Amino acid sequence: MLGAGAARGLRAVSRGVHRTASRGAGPRLDLSGIYPPIATPFTEQEDLDYRKLEENLQKYAQIPFKGLVVQGSNGEYPYLTEEERVEVVRRVRLSLPRDKLVMAGSGCESTRDTVRMTERMAGAGADAVLVVTPCFYKGKMDSRALTHHFTQVADSSPVPVVLYSVPANTGLELPMDAICRLAQHPNIVGLKDSGGDITRIGLAVHKTRALDFQVLAGSAGFLMAAYSVGAVGGVCALANVLGGPLCELERLCVEGRWEEARDLQWRLIEPNAAVTRRLGVPALKQAMEWFGFHGGACRSPLQPITESEAQQLRQDFSSNGWL
Amino acid sequence: MLGAGAARGLRAVSRGVHRTASRGAGPRLDLSGIYPPIATPFTEQEDLDYRKLEENLQKYAQIPFKGLVVQGSNGEYPYLTEEERVEVVRRVRLSLPRDKLVMAGSGCESTRDTVRMTERMAGAGADAVLVVTPCFYKGKMDSRALTHHFTQVADSSPVPVVLYSVPANTGLELPMDAICRLAQHPNIVGLKDSGGDITRIGLAVHKTRALDFQVLAGSAGFLMAAYSVGAVGGVCALANVLGGPLCELERLCVEGRWEEARDLQWRLIEPNAAVTRRLGVPALKQAMEWFGFHGGACRSPLQPITESEAQQLRQDFSSNGWL
Amino acid sequence: MLGAGAARGLRAVSRGVHRTASRGAGPRLDLSGIYPPIATPFTEQEDLDYRKLEENLQKYAQIPFKGLVVQGSNGEYPYLTEEERVEVVRRVRLSLPRDKLVMAGSGCESTRDTVRMTERMAGAGADAVLVVTPCFYKGKMDSRALTHHFTQVADSSPVPVVLYSVPANTGLELPMDAICRLAQHPNIVGLKDSGGDITRIGLAVHKTRALDFQVLAGSAGFLMAAYSVGAVGGVCALANVLGGPLCELERLCVEGRWEEARDLQWRLIEPNAAVTRRLGVPALKQAMEWFGFHGGACRSPLQPITESEAQQLRQDFSSNGWL
Amino acid sequence: MLGAGAARGLRAVSRGVHRTASRGAGPRLDLSGIYPPIATPFTEQEDLDYRKLEENLQKYAQIPFKGLVVQGSNGEYPYLTEEERVEVVRRVRLSLPRDKLVMAGSGCESTRDTVRMTERMAGAGADAVLVVTPCFYKGKMDSRALTHHFTQVADSSPVPVVLYSVPANTGLELPMDAICRLAQHPNIVGLKDSGGDITRIGLAVHKTRALDFQVLAGSAGFLMAAYSVGAVGGVCALANVLGGPLCELERLCVEGRWEEARDLQWRLIEPNAAVTRRLGVPALKQAMEWFGFHGGACRSPLQPITESEAQQLRQDFSSNGWL
Repeated sequence: MLGAGAARGLRAVSRGVHRTASRGAGPRLDLSGIYPPIATPFTEQEDLDYRKLEENLQKYAQIPFKGLVVQGSNGEYPYLTEEERVEVVRRVRLSLPRDKLVMAGSGCESTRDTVRMTERMAGAGADAVLVVTPCFYKGKMDSRALTHHFTQVADSSPVPVVLYSVPANTGLELPMDAICRLAQHPNIVGLKDSGGDITRIGLAVHKTRALDFQVLAGSAGFLMAAYSVGAVGGVCALANVLGGPLCELERLCVEGRWEEARDLQWRLIEPNAAVTRRLGVPALKQAMEWFGFHGGACRSPLQPITESEAQQLRQDFSSNGWL
Repeated sequence: MLGAGAARGLRAVSRGVHRTASRGAGPRLDLSGIYPPIATPFTEQEDLDYRKLEENLQKYAQIPFKGLVVQGSNGEYPYLTEEERVEVVRRVRLSLPRDKLVMAGSGCESTRDTVRMTERMAGAGADAVLVVTPCFYKGKMDSRALTHHFTQVADSSPVPVVLYSVPANTGLELPMDAICRLAQHPNIVGLKDSGGDITRIGLAVHKTRALDFQVLAGSAGFLMAAYSVGAVGGVCALANVLGGPLCELERLCVEGRWEEARDLQWRLIEPNAAVTRRLGVPALKQAMEWFGFHGGACRSPLQPITESEAQQLRQDFSSNGWL
Repeated sequence: MLGAGAARGLRAVSRGVHRTASRGAGPRLDLSGIYPPIATPFTEQEDLDYRKLEENLQKYAQIPFKGLVVQGSNGEYPYLTEEERVEVVRRVRLSLPRDKLVMAGSGCESTRDTVRMTERMAGAGADAVLVVTPCFYKGKMDSRALTHHFTQVADSSPVPVVLYSVPANTGLELPMDAICRLAQHPNIVGLKDSGGDITRIGLAVHKTRALDFQVLAGSAGFLMAAYSVGAVGGVCALANVLGGPLCELERLCVEGRWEEARDLQWRLIEPNAAVTRRLGVPALKQAMEWFGFHGGACRSPLQPITESEAQQLRQDFSSNGWL
Repeated sequence: MLGAGAARGLRAVSRGVHRTASRGAGPRLDLSGIYPPIATPFTEQEDLDYRKLEENLQKYAQIPFKGLVVQGSNGEYPYLTEEERVEVVRRVRLSLPRDKLVMAGSGCESTRDTVRMTERMAGAGADAVLVVTPCFYKGKMDSRALTHHFTQVADSSPVPVVLYSVPANTGLELPMDAICRLAQHPNIVGLKDSGGDITRIGLAVHKTRALDFQVLAGSAGFLMAAYSVGAVGGVCALANVLGGPLCELERLCVEGRWEEARDLQWRLIEPNAAVTRRLGVPALKQAMEWFGFHGGACRSPLQPITESEAQQLRQDFSSNGWL
């Protein structure tokens, strides 16, 4: 079932910038580094605000990110229409320097929609796609169903596929046996794991280390620990706000300067928790405003944080020396 | 916040067939009775099969249902495009006798999409809409956010709104305080509760009994118990297969023939569990085939049940005297 | 494995008062009716207060309970020493009229401790024992382990055994297949189910209806619903406070006066939720004081409810007409 | 509430062997290093087998452990009587070389029982006690209750106290705010965290780094990651089987040899998962037999692993090069 011939040559033909030699089988997409899963700015009327997006992108271009994730969970992608999803990716690709990767979230509930969205994202310029586990029928999303889904998507995708497991939103984890099988697919190059189970992250690296498969931490709270067990980078909501420090943490980990890394990691845990599991996207957007980016409103039903939540949020940044 | 003026007169103007006098404030939509949340037939290529849908509808018209729910969880609505969702409702309304209610699932993740889909569903002929809780950002879907969402939708909806809580799929329950506040909205007429917490169902009836608010059981497994504590009907996946017996169970409950009701209820628990939480939509569709309806394939990533699952499924029906 | 011969005659020899003919195999213990799982009064120094216990018992003797459960979850049994557990049962049996059943909680984590405690409870005068699922190693407490445990206990118990499933405290449910197998044991006469899943309760009745097996609701919140699907009684924390109304609810259900039952059931849901899952044993003991019983302090680490919790608690009783 | 005067001088007077200077406030107990939470050997009749225990201890004395944990979760302590619990600790202390720490699990459900057991454990020679969160009334075990509990225990304990959070068994986590407050108590010296949330472990180190407070990883699966974020050691079930490799992993982490550490960590994840969350204590005891230790039977209701589970277990060790 795994690895349809149609997809087999794909990785060889995509853009060369991020390729490194691997297994003698041609260049592969090197995912290593830090990515902000960018927030999507809206106007007061909840329409897309492309001007603010553009200004954020210009600022992000100054930070040594490996690239951007467009339409990860923090991008409010379930609130965007199909046209909006594609258009945002198109504009990000146009704006961003060529040497920055654009990884676009193309996951939908059905396989057929995900296949089509993946093609459209590639057409809009995405270098890779990030495909979340479908989740509505979570009781039926076992290894068999998920392996089938991701295989279909990877078989037809014009660009490399990164698996995406985010149980806080989906209520399910991509099972380890499915990860191991899917890692063998020539067009599946990695996993973003946002669950934060570091034992599982270590195991995913261990079980796929003979393959061209790269694991990315899905949150800044366990970024250093993930590096310690073999992850190659991180897609971190907090990078929308504290991109520089996160890239610094990456550098310290890569250079093996663990003592310094630890001090920096500690200071990032509380701000990260505040803008992710505790207060979510509305808090992330509020914090972006404090740090010189455009956050702005969320689309409803997401509500702005309250005054007292904003005070707690500020405290989480200031008590760790960021404000 | 609750109850925008724009919506206030709506219930008075919609179709009169299902109205009964209430609170001297004009007729209301009477929801009482049994509804199958109909499955959506697909061809082998996973395209919509309108012919098979039509044949199912003709059979359902012979069963004393109060109406049909189109695009409840069992309708695979997250796998349908917007156009498909509307078109299916339009065809159901055209096919179904006028005295049967069409309740259409119009829930989307964002408020703006739900508002628009609700309008389109009403335009396609829906008598009422069933609006599921948004759930992707489940950590932020508290009473405040959900109350805001449903109020916006109800304010602008041309037809009455039924709240829909289905934690097995969404990972969250509509909180009781939100139910109590929303029940006061003139355009919100009821709740479909699929969680099965009978204490909560009883409490929802108790706390809203001074209002025009009706509670429907969301599964056949607790239908009789729900009647016992004041529910007025049920939206039951199993009604796609055993519609007659479920309408008979309704009649026994309404007539207070509890001993007979109990015997019938008992025999429905295992078949119901099999086609819902244990084996899901693919099993529901398989069982439909056995009972003379068109079930057929699911859209991927839902996979057909295995041979051994099919045997268990058959056993759940046969050991209770249905096969 | 099920049903050792040694235990086979046991039920025939225990006290005759509560026996009725069944299956031609001799009298059985009739469990039908309402039981308060009595609270354990302590002094300010957290010592057992037998005088207060005695006074509570004299009041309970005036209420048409079927009997008392001593050392259910609400009895703080995990905080009592083995000696205290036995002594409390001994005193309850001495004080209580002969025609009231004493059902004693004898569950411990290990099988050997449970066997011994069961013998001691019978020796202290218990008419039956209530045996909770062991739970510390919850990941290993599957059907195999639990069936083995309860079978060992029932084989050696001098009195009939009632299974006890209380997931809110134990984090696990006794699986349905284990219930069905254990119900065949001649010395296992019933199940107290506190989980509140009414579908499951109905199924437990249905699957064991050919046996001498009786199901008791484990909470007042779903008592009427449980009667509707075939339960024969209830062990309800709230009966410590509102024993009369709960016995009245029992009578209405038994007599088939469902409309009146429903009105009463509704008024019991919120007080019940307050003294169980929302505020727990400390709230139960506070409410007992308001209604003329001795509640008093809990043993630490249970803490008294706060002032604001006490106000909410009072509101839950008063808004439903009980205060 | 925190820090009763009576306890203030305690840490200064206990045995000096493991003390190091800290904060100029006198010596403290240095917890750093690896501990097996030893299994308790039973005979075929489920009686304590002190001879086998003794033989295990002699082998453990050859491994560079910091000490032993007696009656952690893997010691089946909930299945031991009070007398057995104390006697096992007494024998371990007698047998073990003086320079090895004995950390004894003294947690019970009630505060008064835990206080008494703590005193008895100290009397039997424990150098420190490990106190698990009480958990039966988990809905009431909030920060207030748990802070009160641990403070009472620490106030009266003759030896230093280590907090113990093990959600897989207890169904609750010791909240971070309680950890931060309890870390200020002069007689509370550390935390064993078995939950495996590495973000939380990092945060616990960060929030208490100004205090004499040490964090131990509660499982081998995340030991290296825990070191990376500041833990000082580990209490690892797997150390009953692979004690040498775990001490080697400790050494590599302490010396900053992260690449080598990673390779070793990877090989330990699957064996560890097998003997903990997947197959539990019975599998741990089986694996001990393979590696030259006495494991033997568990007390019921724990059941031996099945033949097919034993094969999987062996595979988890052999595929990682340990068998």
